[in-house]
Amino acid sequence: MTQLFRSLIFVPGNNSRFLEKAKSLQADIVCFDLEDSVPEIEKSKARKLIKTALKSRKSYSSSIFVRTNSPNSGKIPDDLKEIVQKGIDGIVIPKVNNIKELKIIEKSLSRLEKTRKIKPIQIIPSIESAEGVVNTYEIASYGQRISAVVFGVFDLLNDLGVEYSKNSEGEKYSRRKIPVDAHAAGVAVIDAIWQDLKDAKGLENDCKLGKSLGYTGKSIIHPDQIPVVHKLFHPNKSEISWAEKVCKIYLESSKKGKGATTVEGKMIDEVHFKQAKALLDLIK
Amino acid sequence: MTQLFRSLIFVPGNNSRFLEKAKSLQADIVCFDLEDSVPEIEKSKARKLIKTALKSRKSYSSSIFVRTNSPNSGKIPDDLKEIVQKGIDGIVIPKVNNIKELKIIEKSLSRLEKTRKIKPIQIIPSIESAEGVVNTYEIASYGQRISAVVFGVFDLLNDLGVEYSKNSEGEKYSRRKIPVDAHAAGVAVIDAIWQDLKDAKGLENDCKLGKSLGYTGKSIIHPDQIPVVHKLFHPNKSEISWAEKVCKIYLESSKKGKGATTVEGKMIDEVHFKQAKALLDLIK
Amino acid sequence: MTQLFRSLIFVPGNNSRFLEKAKSLQADIVCFDLEDSVPEIEKSKARKLIKTALKSRKSYSSSIFVRTNSPNSGKIPDDLKEIVQKGIDGIVIPKVNNIKELKIIEKSLSRLEKTRKIKPIQIIPSIESAEGVVNTYEIASYGQRISAVVFGVFDLLNDLGVEYSKNSEGEKYSRRKIPVDAHAAGVAVIDAIWQDLKDAKGLENDCKLGKSLGYTGKSIIHPDQIPVVHKLFHPNKSEISWAEKVCKIYLESSKKGKGATTVEGKMIDEVHFKQAKALLDLIK
Repeated sequence: MTQLFRSLIFVPGNNSRFLEKAKSLQADIVCFDLEDSVPEIEKSKARKLIKTALKSRKSYSSSIFVRTNSPNSGKIPDDLKEIVQKGIDGIVIPKVNNIKELKIIEKSLSRLEKTRKIKPIQIIPSIESAEGVVNTYEIASYGQRISAVVFGVFDLLNDLGVEYSKNSEGEKYSRRKIPVDAHAAGVAVIDAIWQDLKDAKGLENDCKLGKSLGYTGKSIIHPDQIPVVHKLFHPNKSEISWAEKVCKIYLESSKKGKGATTVEGKMIDEVHFKQAKALLDLIK
Repeated sequence: MTQLFRSLIFVPGNNSRFLEKAKSLQADIVCFDLEDSVPEIEKSKARKLIKTALKSRKSYSSSIFVRTNSPNSGKIPDDLKEIVQKGIDGIVIPKVNNIKELKIIEKSLSRLEKTRKIKPIQIIPSIESAEGVVNTYEIASYGQRISAVVFGVFDLLNDLGVEYSKNSEGEKYSRRKIPVDAHAAGVAVIDAIWQDLKDAKGLENDCKLGKSLGYTGKSIIHPDQIPVVHKLFHPNKSEISWAEKVCKIYLESSKKGKGATTVEGKMIDEVHFKQAKALLDLIK
Repeated sequence: MTQLFRSLIFVPGNNSRFLEKAKSLQADIVCFDLEDSVPEIEKSKARKLIKTALKSRKSYSSSIFVRTNSPNSGKIPDDLKEIVQKGIDGIVIPKVNNIKELKIIEKSLSRLEKTRKIKPIQIIPSIESAEGVVNTYEIASYGQRISAVVFGVFDLLNDLGVEYSKNSEGEKYSRRKIPVDAHAAGVAVIDAIWQDLKDAKGLENDCKLGKSLGYTGKSIIHPDQIPVVHKLFHPNKSEISWAEKVCKIYLESSKKGKGATTVEGKMIDEVHFKQAKALLDLIK
């Protein structure tokens, strides 16, 4: 498992063939989906397929996340019951509005992890509502489980009563606020998907824009987008220099028997170290 | 009275002819003004004229609001004393900076409503100061009386020390933040006026921009602007689909003898139902 | 000493010749630097040179500030010990993330001022981290010492993992948010530097943009930039009209033996009065 956040690909959880094919994907994160790509009547089937897929965790080279249903759907308890299993690295929670929602979910998570004797898994909240945009900093700062936030543009525009168009005026404020809030909280930040698979130039420009706004990577809906995204979210000098500092200081701190430490005033723990290490391995 | 927020037209409160003519206006909201369009020496006269106009409330087809003077003016108690009368649907409060100001005003309002035996009226805070922009979400979330917020660009730029120009850089951040904060709070959001009456194309583009940013409607200074604004703030698919859900779920909830309910996690009460119903009536 | 904020020029604190030449500078604020322009091994020397320069305070026509090292550097106590002396008008604190940092610094400051029998000096926090951008309003509202905030674009982009380019997309959100937050807090706001000394047209456009966003002035790295910056940050009508109100109302309040008062609901004390007076003197 790498701890990079350049690419997060959504794989419909109700399609056993896709789950199987995902083993060969080179995305940093493979995210099995229980939400929008799964019709109501297949939710239960999808949970079971994902549970099975997690048993062959070793065949996947990416981090493995599951996108649950949204806090408002009432389905998260059922989702977690099936998918919080050995092999899962974390969950993506769609349409997170505020930290009250996270608190409830974390409680369920912790209980399941304890019963099933697995380590605490990561949470990537998805910001795709106006309320989520208002609260991004608070959400991203919620706690150690939060390793990244992801931006969802379609549902956000819908919440604003705005029709989707490419690079619309309606997305600008939110798309720019989210990476600032995420960096302030010290977590990675993954840009929204580029939907038009035929518009390769559009994807490229959208990646460049995302990178220039501070995004660490991009959500992906088709394997063909992975190489483009990896090329354009290749770490730059300032990221490499930061990763070097993190590795150096964390290793020194570890030698002294300490865990978490600070680098230029920012809290650094094992998760940050792993991310920094993965980034440096990448550019070797 | 409709509960739509596509258009809010300001009518000088000191001009009895204008108050009379406003009876034929087709704007969603007619807002009698006590603030900027009324010179100091005519404030008292304007309050009396508005009080009189409210007596023929039934001759107006729009919602009837009154814009009071600003919290900092010290004139609000005198304004409210005269204009909180049967027939008024709400007040627009200009230059709201924070919820402390709203608390004081609401206290006066509630007392007057009780004495005069009228139902609680709505409040539309106007965001037109830097402090108001910072606090928009808190202001919009202040309570059930807040049905919308309105943006005021001229006073905002003045507060920032910026000279007005059309679509200036200085307005961009605030104009984009306000609709996100308003939607997060679940209230309507009305864009600033377009001042140049001769520039019809400019008005049209400004409406389109406002709509694409999430605004529900626009402030208006001349009756000629109403049809253009109504055309360009016509509800789109996502708004219609939301209104349908709200109506359906609220009616089901009502049948069970319950009032307020939630739709996709958002609080829905009678005000939201009326708005949704008005929107659906519009497109019939 | 003027109390204008059109221009703040950084002067390396370790260069005695530059400190001497700064006596002839016509910038509103001359800021001796202890941070980025001073190598580690010269910090101690720079502190001593600045301490000496402050003894000939009367030879400088500008306000005299010192930029300390950052809160995370651990060097501020040593900085303050040397430079909090008679003659200093204030400090610029780089990379301020939150008000917890300000609290600690203010404690040291107050103790030194008391011991050394000097009046409380000003603080200009520099916003150049994602966390600082999130907290700008809180930082700018921290207390009476805060007379302005200054924007630092290079370190901000670095914190966001974005490579610097002129007028990059990555700076837009933060550069627009900061003046709104500063005006909301009632303090001046100084834009980031323009680094390319050869690109005079670029500087001019960058000043115009900053002014149109609400900035009061600009950071400067070379004396040649001062006249351009002063020309383009010349006060406009709305600023002059505000200054006139502040002077009038503050003088009336003073005559009645009162100090601080309010103008249109904003707190006005002697600092604001001096700023307003300086602005009106400028345009005489």
